[in-house]
Amino acid sequence: MLIVGELINSSRKAISDSVDNRNAHYIKKIAFEQVEAGANYLDVNCGTKVFEEKETMEWLINTIQEAVQVPLCIDSPNPEVLEAGLALCKYGQPMINSITDEKERFEAISPLLAKYKAKIVALCMDDEGVPETAADRMRVLKSLYDKLRSIGVPDQDMYFDPLVKPISSIEAAGIEVLETIRAVKKEYPNVHFMCGLSNVSYGLPNRKILNRIFMVQTMTLGMDGYILNPTDRGMMGTIFAAQALMGQDLYCMNYLSAHRAGVYEELSKNL
Amino acid sequence: MLIVGELINSSRKAISDSVDNRNAHYIKKIAFEQVEAGANYLDVNCGTKVFEEKETMEWLINTIQEAVQVPLCIDSPNPEVLEAGLALCKYGQPMINSITDEKERFEAISPLLAKYKAKIVALCMDDEGVPETAADRMRVLKSLYDKLRSIGVPDQDMYFDPLVKPISSIEAAGIEVLETIRAVKKEYPNVHFMCGLSNVSYGLPNRKILNRIFMVQTMTLGMDGYILNPTDRGMMGTIFAAQALMGQDLYCMNYLSAHRAGVYEELSKNL
Repeated sequence: MLIVGELINSSRKAISDSVDNRNAHYIKKIAFEQVEAGANYLDVNCGTKVFEEKETMEWLINTIQEAVQVPLCIDSPNPEVLEAGLALCKYGQPMINSITDEKERFEAISPLLAKYKAKIVALCMDDEGVPETAADRMRVLKSLYDKLRSIGVPDQDMYFDPLVKPISSIEAAGIEVLETIRAVKKEYPNVHFMCGLSNVSYGLPNRKILNRIFMVQTMTLGMDGYILNPTDRGMMGTIFAAQALMGQDLYCMNYLSAHRAGVYEELSKNL
Repeated sequence: MLIVGELINSSRKAISDSVDNRNAHYIKKIAFEQVEAGANYLDVNCGTKVFEEKETMEWLINTIQEAVQVPLCIDSPNPEVLEAGLALCKYGQPMINSITDEKERFEAISPLLAKYKAKIVALCMDDEGVPETAADRMRVLKSLYDKLRSIGVPDQDMYFDPLVKPISSIEAAGIEVLETIRAVKKEYPNVHFMCGLSNVSYGLPNRKILNRIFMVQTMTLGMDGYILNPTDRGMMGTIFAAQALMGQDLYCMNYLSAHRAGVYEELSKNL
């Protein structure tokens, strides 16, 4: 399971302020807390700093790597920013977030893949946008898969993101994603998946409950990567419990460790 | 989704006492509360009253049917008790809980199926016990399916129960059940499933959390019946949320009704 910590994102006010003030202490603290809570990658996104995205990315990456030694997920639509970030990554195999089947974007980002041997988040969209049905999603993902293979990306470095839409606006938004995972798993058993969870519940009450249940549903069908807030104990506790139930946790050891660490204390109170 | 309310079971002290004192008021109250909370069948089990099981079953059924007009799930290993119960059922299609592929039990219970046109809970076990692997479970279920078909039971009246074992003693207990559901769905798309949830978490802490996550996992693969406590808001809330996420809830109406009824209030507090 790949847990990408999502907190270092300049669209969050505290991060934006820390970036503006070059407050390295706060960035390091957030990096450390996420790794401590179970993140095995950290996403780095400073897309809101449009006119100084490259310098900001460089400062963030250097700062984070002074605090923790985990691989990073460089998150930008701008190939120049991605390259600047990748060049600085010191630990493990970096990840690029993200490529799509949009012609221009694919061409701009694919050279970085060969150069940095990075893992790649491949978003299920092309020049016509994000498809709705599982069949249309599969068509886009097949096209992406073929192109990624043709430039030498091995299956195990691909992380397909089906791009979840809100069920409040499209009733079948959830099930289409579940069907997409099922279909991709069958066709390409060695590729990975990755997604964010919060879109699915947009516009509905009790969003955290919905997000967690959708996480369990997607895990059941083979989703094996999430970009999330790893300090959310309910979310991480749900992952450990789901893994134990799926026989992915020898002697339930991780589940029991999480229990002893108090992960389920709050969750259990109001059952 | 078939929700069978499990509370009228004489292994529970309050029910046992009410049965002993012929306290019809309490039984009616529990029947009413379960239906109010969303049960569409009520299980009736007085197996602990070994020497007067038949009379007790008759009293319970008559009492329950004075309070609510829902179909009942007659729960006994004893064919005589089952028959006495079935003969009294007034509302909808009754359910027999349960048959197995044990030779003697199958022969004793199968005549009731033809006579009462009941739905049937078919437990995944034969004279060798409960199988462990998905492949062995599938072998038993195929044998049961063929026998049930041969006596005229239609697919849609079959509710297969894979019989969940605790993951604390068998690491793969959960995944074998998930694989079994997947395999049965593929082979017999029109049969149903039914199971209890609490076994899976036996011996582990935070059992309610594990039970709920296992419910979501099984629902994701097609499990469509549960015997549970419908007054457990966390459990019912999880069902409504999971259905909304799977596109089984037009405009999320049931989910939103549950929300307005306060189903998620307690659950949301400690997120």
